[in-house]
Amino acid sequence: MAEPETEHPTGQASEPGPRRGRPGHDQETVLRRAVDLFNRQGYDATSMGDLARELGFTKSAIYHHVPSKAHLLAEALDEALDELTAVVEEAVTHADGLSAEERLRHTVRRSVEVLVAHQPAVTLLLRVRGNSDVELAAQRRRRELDARLADLVRAAVAEGSLRDDVDPDVVSRLLFGMVNSLVEWYRPGGSVDAAVLSDAVATIAFDGLTRPAPHQS
Amino acid sequence: MAEPETEHPTGQASEPGPRRGRPGHDQETVLRRAVDLFNRQGYDATSMGDLARELGFTKSAIYHHVPSKAHLLAEALDEALDELTAVVEEAVTHADGLSAEERLRHTVRRSVEVLVAHQPAVTLLLRVRGNSDVELAAQRRRRELDARLADLVRAAVAEGSLRDDVDPDVVSRLLFGMVNSLVEWYRPGGSVDAAVLSDAVATIAFDGLTRPAPHQS
Repeated sequence: MAEPETEHPTGQASEPGPRRGRPGHDQETVLRRAVDLFNRQGYDATSMGDLARELGFTKSAIYHHVPSKAHLLAEALDEALDELTAVVEEAVTHADGLSAEERLRHTVRRSVEVLVAHQPAVTLLLRVRGNSDVELAAQRRRRELDARLADLVRAAVAEGSLRDDVDPDVVSRLLFGMVNSLVEWYRPGGSVDAAVLSDAVATIAFDGLTRPAPHQS
Repeated sequence: MAEPETEHPTGQASEPGPRRGRPGHDQETVLRRAVDLFNRQGYDATSMGDLARELGFTKSAIYHHVPSKAHLLAEALDEALDELTAVVEEAVTHADGLSAEERLRHTVRRSVEVLVAHQPAVTLLLRVRGNSDVELAAQRRRRELDARLADLVRAAVAEGSLRDDVDPDVVSRLLFGMVNSLVEWYRPGGSVDAAVLSDAVATIAFDGLTRPAPHQS
């Protein structure tokens, strides 16, 4: 499921071309490198010529490998959205005996894991502007997810676990805003471990930054 | 100081041209509408021709009003960076008798205010990719700000106000990641008031989402 980004460093475009390894590997490599390029210079600003150069294809050969820019964008956005949808589904289907707060905590932790494992695709998703049908469709799916996350926050407020002095919609925006901000700085293989990060996000969000009193539960 | 974005709705490009009002208004209007266009379709994907069309100038007339795209970008990024720098300076200069935690809380609240008042410029800043000298210079200034914010977080941990079970650098990233995420959804004049929002962010960040115990201080 997780394709670590470290395999495809984003700094330089001087790696060898994508023709290597077992069948099926090519398309995956093409997608990874296209997503990195889109994130680096912006999807709208990237031409098929730029993609060809990045991937080591001639401008005519690229069309044998990539039907269109939008095709690659759709694949990457689906990857991110499918993973995030699975997280939200888990919160509903594995809910036996769990409070809404526990389900929300689980959702926050799993979202961090997805962001870490699929960082390039999620980064692309978060930057989508709605300038094409593919982007508009992705924005619709993202809004549905946001609505379901907001429902979960409301349920946790309603059961009395979460504070009710802040508008649940604002809570939901800020909570997942903090989660999503990871894509801007987290680097796989860097100094911060994914499990540590997932703990840190949940701790800060639910318990706050203020030092707990000595005997607080 | 604050130029509310509501004056220039971003949805449509069909408003009248910028030639109206008192002297000096034109340049300001040109800047606001250019920033909105950059945010809408991406700076790299925006040409001088696109700008001319958006502003109602001919392709040759635009150069009388706008020396270059980079000039407008630099002005907008400086606006955002100057405001955010002023917030960080306040935390240092108005520090008499205040704990590091109090200064950090103040900084978080003031940052929210700046993001609300200068949302389009800050949005542009947060999306900068480093593809030009102007962008690289802005990224350098932003890194300096981030380093000073991280220092403030470390000071609050060192004085014993903030929890020390999460790496202060991670705390700083997540805290200001939450603050910065506002630009993605907050709309001036919408249902959420700026002062309410500033309270909500500080409350969630410092006290956490979990409902406080009845007699907790």
